Formats: sequence, structure tokens, C-alpha cells
Amino acid sequence: MATEVTDVPAAGETNGVAVEKTVTFTAVKPQLFVESPKVSDAVAFYKSAFGFEEVNRVTHPKRKADQELPLLLSAEIKLGSSSILVSDLSDDSTASGKPVGSGVIICLETEDIEAAINQAVKAGAVADGEISEGEGACCGRVGKVKDPYGVVWAICTPAKKCANVEA
Amino acid sequence: MATEVTDVPAAGETNGVAVEKTVTFTAVKPQLFVESPKVSDAVAFYKSAFGFEEVNRVTHPKRKADQELPLLLSAEIKLGSSSILVSDLSDDSTASGKPVGSGVIICLETEDIEAAINQAVKAGAVADGEISEGEGACCGRVGKVKDPYGVVWAICTPAKKCANVEA
Repeated sequence: MATEVTDVPAAGETNGVAVEKTVTFTAVKPQLFVESPKVSDAVAFYKSAFGFEEVNRVTHPKRKADQELPLLLSAEIKLGSSSILVSDLSDDSTASGKPVGSGVIICLETEDIEAAINQAVKAGAVADGEISEGEGACCGRVGKVKDPYGVVWAICTPAKKCANVEA
Repeated sequence: MATEVTDVPAAGETNGVAVEKTVTFTAVKPQLFVESPKVSDAVAFYKSAFGFEEVNRVTHPKRKADQELPLLLSAEIKLGSSSILVSDLSDDSTASGKPVGSGVIICLETEDIEAAINQAVKAGAVADGEISEGEGACCGRVGKVKDPYGVVWAICTPAKKCANVEA
């Protein structure tokens, strides 16, 4: 028998003196980055190619007044129970975590991003930039870590439902 | 109001003469590729860093007889209801879809991969290699498409539960 399901020590367990916080993730969402004006095109493509539905969108706040069509900064699309984020590569709020030569990172949603980042760094990940307000990426606050295998993970608070505000 | 949830034409609808098959996807799973001997390390890391649990694993069939510890070729790890695949970059079965400069692709599971690939190609994706048996990637059969934004999608039949066979 070789079913090696190793037990992960629960972060909230009392181990001697220090009681660590329990980190609970509520969602895992791949985030695809596309070039600046192409988020709308990409969302339309994923709808027709795979049948995704758009469930949330964030438009560029600065361009709302100047342009008739607000620039789409980020959208959440859903297929069955799985969500994917499609985001503008030039979105400043995610600049520090921009994947090098890659268009995909993984977002993990949690209420306590500091505890989650600490746990990942203790395990061997490297913090990538500061925690910032990630309005463009459909998260409240977001921090990034890079794992030892080159994958970037965004640790963020759950997505707000970002309805477009009428200008 | 700008809630642009565009309707996707159902692929199974009768449009004139041709009746296309309805494509149904049953799962969306990011697949992370890591260098050859490091799949076990990466799985251990994702368990301790984020609390993933291993739910499925495939070991290298050729090396089982030679080595005491079989080389882990691919594993499925789960966090809540979301699964991620961690796979050996040198796995031949996924060679055609190897991400260039990226460690992440997205797997979409469906029973009819031919119909799904056709639908994606009609929408503008480019087929990437032939459909093959993807035993190492925890799928039955797998085909790849590259979308216009550089993201590689693996279209595969649902993962088999691959229990380790005793040598």
C-alpha cells in the first residue's frame, strides 16, 4: 500500500507555547493576465470557447469619465463551480506579482492574508512585494508569494461584488 | 447598467441543418509543472504552505521495478472543493502542451474532448499537438489548445482514481 496522504499539522494546534492562527482558504482561482486592452476580448473568447459565464467585473476607474466604454480591468468568469479571473496585465495593483513569462497565477482567498502569507513563507515561499489594495483584481487586499517551483500565488481577501457604478 | 452577461449560443442547438454536440465540462483544474524529480517535494510544500490534501497520485510506471521509492509523475491536491494538478515537466504525455516559460496551464475535464477542442478552435484557439493518452497527467485522454492570449488549456477526460499498484 502506498496511499501517502500525509497529515498536515493544523496551524491552530497548541504545540508547546505558541498558538498559531488557523488559516482557512475559501476559494482557489486561477488568474490569467492578458495585455492591457484585451480583457473584454478574452472574456468573450472564454465564453464562446468553453462556455464560461461572467459573474463579476471591474472597470478602470480613471477612464470612466473620459470614455464611453469603460476599460475592463478584471473579470471573474465561472464554469460550473469553478471561477477564473481574467485581468489586465498593466493593472498596477498586481504589478509586483506579475508572472515572468507566464500568463497564469493562482489566487487563494482568505480573510486573514497576513497569517496565510506567514504560513507560506514559513514553508519556504518568498513574499513578493507588499500587501496592497487590489481593486482591479477583484479582491479587497492582496499579497503575493512565489513558491520554490516558480509559481506565483496571490493571497487575497474574498472578491467583492463589483457592480458598475453609473457615472 | 452595464452587466454584460452575454449569452453563449448553446452548442447543441439546432441552427439550420447541423446539430452540434453540447460540450459539458465537469471540472476546471490548474496544472502546475515542476522539474522532473520535484513533484513529491512540491506536493509536500503545497500541503504545508496552503493546507492542500493529496487525493490522487500517479507514479512513473517504468521506474517502479528499479527503485524502492517510485518517482511521482503527477498528483492531484485539493483545497476545499478546488483541485490542482502537480505534474512532472518531463512527462512525455504532456510534452506538446508544455507551457513555454510558464509553469501553469488550465485543465478542463469533459467526456467528449473532440467536441470540446472543435468548439475552442472555432472560437479562435489553436490545437496544440495530437490527442494522446495522458496517464501521467491524471487524465484518461488529453488534447491541448492554445488560446489567442497565450494560455494553454488541456482538454481531458476525467481523472481516473490511480491507486498505486503493488509491484
